[in-house]
Amino acid sequence: MSETAAANSNDQDALVVRQLADGVLRLTLNNPPANALSIAMMEALKSALDAAGTDNDVRVVVISAAGKVFSAGHDLKELTAHRSDDDRGRVFFEKTMRLCSDLMMTITALPKPVIAEVDGLATAAGCQLVATCDLAICTDTSQFCTPGVNIGLFCSTPMVAVSRAAHRKQAMEMLLTGEPVDASSAKEFGLVNRIVPKEYLRTVTDKYAAVIASKSALTLKIGKEAFYQQLERPLNEAYDYTAWVMTENMLARDAEEGINAFLEKREPKWSDR
Amino acid sequence: MSETAAANSNDQDALVVRQLADGVLRLTLNNPPANALSIAMMEALKSALDAAGTDNDVRVVVISAAGKVFSAGHDLKELTAHRSDDDRGRVFFEKTMRLCSDLMMTITALPKPVIAEVDGLATAAGCQLVATCDLAICTDTSQFCTPGVNIGLFCSTPMVAVSRAAHRKQAMEMLLTGEPVDASSAKEFGLVNRIVPKEYLRTVTDKYAAVIASKSALTLKIGKEAFYQQLERPLNEAYDYTAWVMTENMLARDAEEGINAFLEKREPKWSDR
Amino acid sequence: MSETAAANSNDQDALVVRQLADGVLRLTLNNPPANALSIAMMEALKSALDAAGTDNDVRVVVISAAGKVFSAGHDLKELTAHRSDDDRGRVFFEKTMRLCSDLMMTITALPKPVIAEVDGLATAAGCQLVATCDLAICTDTSQFCTPGVNIGLFCSTPMVAVSRAAHRKQAMEMLLTGEPVDASSAKEFGLVNRIVPKEYLRTVTDKYAAVIASKSALTLKIGKEAFYQQLERPLNEAYDYTAWVMTENMLARDAEEGINAFLEKREPKWSDR
Repeated sequence: MSETAAANSNDQDALVVRQLADGVLRLTLNNPPANALSIAMMEALKSALDAAGTDNDVRVVVISAAGKVFSAGHDLKELTAHRSDDDRGRVFFEKTMRLCSDLMMTITALPKPVIAEVDGLATAAGCQLVATCDLAICTDTSQFCTPGVNIGLFCSTPMVAVSRAAHRKQAMEMLLTGEPVDASSAKEFGLVNRIVPKEYLRTVTDKYAAVIASKSALTLKIGKEAFYQQLERPLNEAYDYTAWVMTENMLARDAEEGINAFLEKREPKWSDR
Repeated sequence: MSETAAANSNDQDALVVRQLADGVLRLTLNNPPANALSIAMMEALKSALDAAGTDNDVRVVVISAAGKVFSAGHDLKELTAHRSDDDRGRVFFEKTMRLCSDLMMTITALPKPVIAEVDGLATAAGCQLVATCDLAICTDTSQFCTPGVNIGLFCSTPMVAVSRAAHRKQAMEMLLTGEPVDASSAKEFGLVNRIVPKEYLRTVTDKYAAVIASKSALTLKIGKEAFYQQLERPLNEAYDYTAWVMTENMLARDAEEGINAFLEKREPKWSDR
Repeated sequence: MSETAAANSNDQDALVVRQLADGVLRLTLNNPPANALSIAMMEALKSALDAAGTDNDVRVVVISAAGKVFSAGHDLKELTAHRSDDDRGRVFFEKTMRLCSDLMMTITALPKPVIAEVDGLATAAGCQLVATCDLAICTDTSQFCTPGVNIGLFCSTPMVAVSRAAHRKQAMEMLLTGEPVDASSAKEFGLVNRIVPKEYLRTVTDKYAAVIASKSALTLKIGKEAFYQQLERPLNEAYDYTAWVMTENMLARDAEEGINAFLEKREPKWSDR
């Protein structure tokens, strides 16, 4: 049985359904209607991402969701159940927030691009998940919301991702009012890259994924890591760092092959293909 | 006499008029036509904000202005008068710039959201004031300008706020040309959240303020502080910090009440209400 | 022979053609069709910028290009030729990336505003050049692209400039897909300030340049330096720094003259005019 078939044999009742085809790993949050980011869901998603990171058959990851809600964020019933713990839930809350942050940083640190495919509502940590992915494509009826303020729990971890994707006043409006923004505003704010009609969502995501999957995996790994690293440095240090990255990249086989192919007007053959 | 009535008994000839109703403190710059940020005006505004910070009756602050100019920035006559000081004005200029910066940082550090309500021209430190507020709502005839370059005095303190709200090229265009931008461009740049016709300005601001005033004051305080703190940290430190903030927030009474109310499909009752 | 005439006597076959008129230095990349940023081109451009930095006759710099491509980025043939060096090209690649980064930082550090005037395609380091300039004006048929990923060489140094001008998801889309974006998207992303029809490009750039050239050169120098310095500091340090900058600026002759002229409703006479 091929590795792809093995991956696709994944139980369709799993919290996160894995489908791998043509280098694109599709991870579908599969606990509708809310697709809440319970401990089990976050562990399943993080585990699938960790595995994707070292799986040479995976070149791009798409995170999508079953049902009308992309993800409603943390599982409030699960959190509330731990209020009766001896410590009033502190250890469990810490575990939840730490795991959620680790999940988000796993996406950022993953050596492969991650695309959010959104159809419906993405709220709280669900909105954070979209903001954290490298790219995001959504339907025109999708909505984005950081409504924690409505339940006394400010979306403080979601805002780490939202405030880095969008202008700060727009992020603040979402956070302070707790009201949803539509797809058009989300694109204007910088939360998503592309808005498409529902019937084309899968087609457009697949096209983006295929375009990216056709690149050198090594080059994507070098570039994605450098992107997030240099963003956090002052200008001169960012240039010192990326000038070094570019030199190392030039010396890699895929750059030699890619540049030669370009100069010879032919398709490149990447080293991992 | 109720505390609200006391607040509203404020002298209508004051530089900054205070009106408190339903948890919303409206501070009106009241020195038309320019509403210049003289020492006296900045001290009056800072004093009103400091008082609002510790006043449990204040849940949201709106900064508006009387007349056709929101604020024209520093008082150039006041500054110029001090050129005849023994030190050519150095100490007075320092005092002015320091006070202005303190005023802006007071807004950012205030544990309550601050909304700028703009109808007309906001220039130099007046534009900075709008950029500094957490949210900004303006009329479609409002204009925004950092014209210091026209008078030989680059808008160097205003640009701290403008360059953090907008993309850098758009901020640079305002700063280098000194030309005003219209409301539509200001929204595109990230300087304002919403543009409304003049006859609806007050209605829309009041709606935003009422929505925010209905939230838990403790939650707003936790969230606003965390927002500006995490923005200045690298991603992993931002997550360490906000994961801790979320855990502490979860353990606060208002989060317990808010989440319970949500799960029980009823309105929450915040601890300070 | 006047200095302006001397500047304009520059060889029209030079890699970078210099034209100085009315305080505006126009530097035209003059190696069509690609205007590749070869070592020679980068050295010529850096040299012209260095000279402009200390030339009192230059108040504003415009970078434009001859032909249909603004710049296609690094010279791939030049890079590839050094693969046969004993070190497989490492020293030459390092030299190229270091020179390119120095060129970009020269623009940022130049005490005079730099405007990119773009008509056509700006790719890779050519796109970086546009993103790095303080302002950018382009025709409606211009395109912007960071296509390194297509040839196995991620645009890691270009992304330093692109990711600081645009929202990160939009920058990532350009970097991961390698596909060009049109002028309208580039404006939305923050890469350019203004889009104009081709027949008005020169007129509009010249107007921007003339507006800026009419300001005090000292004030522009103070402001541009402070802009990039404060952007990299936390809020309180940015205010400490710029409050000091404003005080020093107030004590300079041009601020005294500019403010007096404003209060007296007359045109200012700058000290270097």
